[in-house]
Amino acid sequence: MNGAESLVRTLVDSGVDLCITNPGTSEMHFVAALDKLPGMRCVLGLFEGVVTGAADGFYRMAGRPAATLLHLGPGLANGLANLHNAKKARSGIVNIVGEHATHHLAHDAPLTSDVAAVARPMSDWVHTTATSRDVARDGALAVQVARTPPGRIATLILPADTAWNEAEACAVAAAPASRAKVASEAVREAAQALRQGPRSALLLGGVGVREPALQLAGRIAARTGCALLSEFNSARLERGAGRVLTQRIPYVVDSALDLLKDFTHIVLAGAKPPVGFFAYPGKPSLLAPPDCRFAALAAVDEDIVAALQGLADELDATTLAPALVARPQRPALPSGPVTLEGVAAVLGALLPEQAIVVDEAVSSGRGLGAPTQGAAPHDWLTSMGGSIGYGLPVAVGAALACPDRKVLALEGDGSAMYTLQALWTLARESLDVTVVVFANRAYQILRGEFANVGAGAPGQRATDMLTLDRPALDWCALARGHGVEAGQAADLQAFARQLQRGLACRGPYLIELLL
Amino acid sequence: MNGAESLVRTLVDSGVDLCITNPGTSEMHFVAALDKLPGMRCVLGLFEGVVTGAADGFYRMAGRPAATLLHLGPGLANGLANLHNAKKARSGIVNIVGEHATHHLAHDAPLTSDVAAVARPMSDWVHTTATSRDVARDGALAVQVARTPPGRIATLILPADTAWNEAEACAVAAAPASRAKVASEAVREAAQALRQGPRSALLLGGVGVREPALQLAGRIAARTGCALLSEFNSARLERGAGRVLTQRIPYVVDSALDLLKDFTHIVLAGAKPPVGFFAYPGKPSLLAPPDCRFAALAAVDEDIVAALQGLADELDATTLAPALVARPQRPALPSGPVTLEGVAAVLGALLPEQAIVVDEAVSSGRGLGAPTQGAAPHDWLTSMGGSIGYGLPVAVGAALACPDRKVLALEGDGSAMYTLQALWTLARESLDVTVVVFANRAYQILRGEFANVGAGAPGQRATDMLTLDRPALDWCALARGHGVEAGQAADLQAFARQLQRGLACRGPYLIELLL
Repeated sequence: MNGAESLVRTLVDSGVDLCITNPGTSEMHFVAALDKLPGMRCVLGLFEGVVTGAADGFYRMAGRPAATLLHLGPGLANGLANLHNAKKARSGIVNIVGEHATHHLAHDAPLTSDVAAVARPMSDWVHTTATSRDVARDGALAVQVARTPPGRIATLILPADTAWNEAEACAVAAAPASRAKVASEAVREAAQALRQGPRSALLLGGVGVREPALQLAGRIAARTGCALLSEFNSARLERGAGRVLTQRIPYVVDSALDLLKDFTHIVLAGAKPPVGFFAYPGKPSLLAPPDCRFAALAAVDEDIVAALQGLADELDATTLAPALVARPQRPALPSGPVTLEGVAAVLGALLPEQAIVVDEAVSSGRGLGAPTQGAAPHDWLTSMGGSIGYGLPVAVGAALACPDRKVLALEGDGSAMYTLQALWTLARESLDVTVVVFANRAYQILRGEFANVGAGAPGQRATDMLTLDRPALDWCALARGHGVEAGQAADLQAFARQLQRGLACRGPYLIELLL
Repeated sequence: MNGAESLVRTLVDSGVDLCITNPGTSEMHFVAALDKLPGMRCVLGLFEGVVTGAADGFYRMAGRPAATLLHLGPGLANGLANLHNAKKARSGIVNIVGEHATHHLAHDAPLTSDVAAVARPMSDWVHTTATSRDVARDGALAVQVARTPPGRIATLILPADTAWNEAEACAVAAAPASRAKVASEAVREAAQALRQGPRSALLLGGVGVREPALQLAGRIAARTGCALLSEFNSARLERGAGRVLTQRIPYVVDSALDLLKDFTHIVLAGAKPPVGFFAYPGKPSLLAPPDCRFAALAAVDEDIVAALQGLADELDATTLAPALVARPQRPALPSGPVTLEGVAAVLGALLPEQAIVVDEAVSSGRGLGAPTQGAAPHDWLTSMGGSIGYGLPVAVGAALACPDRKVLALEGDGSAMYTLQALWTLARESLDVTVVVFANRAYQILRGEFANVGAGAPGQRATDMLTLDRPALDWCALARGHGVEAGQAADLQAFARQLQRGLACRGPYLIELLL
């Protein structure tokens, strides 16, 4: 048994059974070990951002880490942006990064770089294994770290000789740690804050926006009249008909300030005090009123559900019925020219039961909330780190985690371009993902931001930097080039037809929605 | 004048007149300044690896740095792999990386990361500007660093408030430093080594593989009988009919060992002692015989041309005529099924005068050397850092630098996928680039490496990780999706026709060559 084999056995024995890969020469012994040993599903991505983003999506939906296999510093670097997103989403990932053999490093071969330094900014834990006999122990530790609630990025750097030299034994990761319970004092303070009634809010994050936390939050709101808020982004928000509704804090700073302006007390359950996505001249970073008081009920890594249960008990709210979103009469599908309102109505009407929506529609997606809130129960995933190009890879991972659920990826055309190679993995693995590309042929959000920062009206050079026309991207051709079937929609009837077609097939389908 | 405007003026006044961009909100004031002020050409890339790779290609061909404009830590991270390649190629680049406004950083907004830590592994110089009044001075310093011979990666991190707050003055970068002269002792030692005759070699790197260094090397070889070698990769190798030929050290370790086995003395001029690209069990890292003696004539950052002139003088070789590559009779174009030999013959026959060849054909490109060595004079660019995905972006930059020369990008299908978004920039800017995709539908090099590391014959899982079929990528569709015309070739006649078509048009054209 060589080091690579000891690692694969250790990962499988520790419950890691998915490896998303983009390997190179220094990882060939791991490829050989994955080939030889049973128990690991291997999925190839043609760009490393696909690999790390898929691991993020897998964790969000499966609740357990996948492994990635990446090639040296530059391969890891290509995966960093989506590791940033995964880290902010508190997803657990075990990155296996190959390195030159120990004796080769001194010679500064072309691919030599400081792999650990590349890893650190986007990892919670980084370790370089010294010898083949340490690989199993280090691998088990990496799994343990990745599983630490709510999830961590563990990056294990393995010099090639630790893969090909002899190993002695395998290892098994320690059982996942439990989430820390919150102090009863925090519960009492939160209860006191919410007794302010409608001028108080319960701001939910992390698993606070999933069942059963939402049920508890609904009971607490029924008792106190507090508002239920969620952060602008959520790793996995459970919503739809029959569920407790939270109001999402808007992206636009003025809208967020307006929403929050009357709150005197905000209780934080898995969330942080709201902060603007970006800073703007003359606008505050913090979105709550300066005199608003925060009560920290539970941090994102603590036992949020137990804390909410304790809060419901403290408020004598446990037996109350939470307000649930009614399922609206299924509306007639709208028709006519494409409008974002019409698109949202089509999505709300057609969203299938237990769909997983991966939302990277950016500016086109801002109005999707209300028209879809009464749709069939579904999960809504957004980018926690704000780095563009998270959507298609996360859709890959969500589909790998939940083969029996339909994934709907909503993509801005600008966003989808960063990691469009994910389309090939959708086709290779026959993943049940319908992709909608909102083709406005611009970095539309930046056109807004250009005005927001006070830069006035863009001239020709700025317009060129903010638009994707000249030439227009042909998303149907791009999809077919990656082996994914596709169709175009230029009005709402065509969009509904295309969406029905995509949702009806088992496997990937892409819709280019012309805006 | 705000900080952003002071930076743009400083860059333009310092001779930086190309900015390759993929901006975000925190860079909107720079976009506004680029919009408002004259003198800077702005080129948009739809992925940051395109941006940094294009800056590398521009420096290789223009000999002066372009600026990049990147969005925060994750945007920079997406550009790191090609910064790694650029750093190893000793290209000079001025990276402008936006950062959250200083006062916003403490609040840990989603896109917050340690930008400087992300930059450091792939930069020679990293600096974060403190206030808007420092932007011009720091920008001038960044240009000065980037122009330090042979070229350096300078990364300037600019918090958004340094862009929008008031600035006082512009600045101008100091004149580029001269290359250091080598000591006369080094010249004498090199001469002594080469007096060993045919058992000695002059190994050239950096500007040592460009005119006029090659002419001097040719004279030295004519005098001493030494071999003229070049490293496996060169940032810019000038070759073709009428030029001095160097023998490239092979990628395959056994071939390299065989080439070098009889040399007792190797003189290094801009090169390092040859090292294997990767380590393999039981094979050496260093490729020269253990008792081979190296004489360091000139390091890559020293005055290589003057050192070679000094060496030619010392050897009394200055008046000798170097051996030049003869221009062969233009051979008949081969026909029949596609073979790599036939493809190389077609390329050798059709390569236009002063073509710039960007070679990322990987396994398919190994046999291109001999059949093209007598082609019309041309430049041959390879990846100095070994990170895949360098080719199409470098072709963008080379075409921006040399609008009157034809660029020919030779791409493996696996390699081209990492940064295929470069195709859109080719179309947007009407760049005169013909792309040949060698579609073997595999990471063919890794299939070889799987055997090289002793892993035996790949099974199904390994085969799946090393092949790009299921589904096959359709490169013509991918090209058209990005707005680039394309055609397919399945035999050598069709390849010759397609290549003639691509070379005849002004603007981008892609050929999918089915292997």
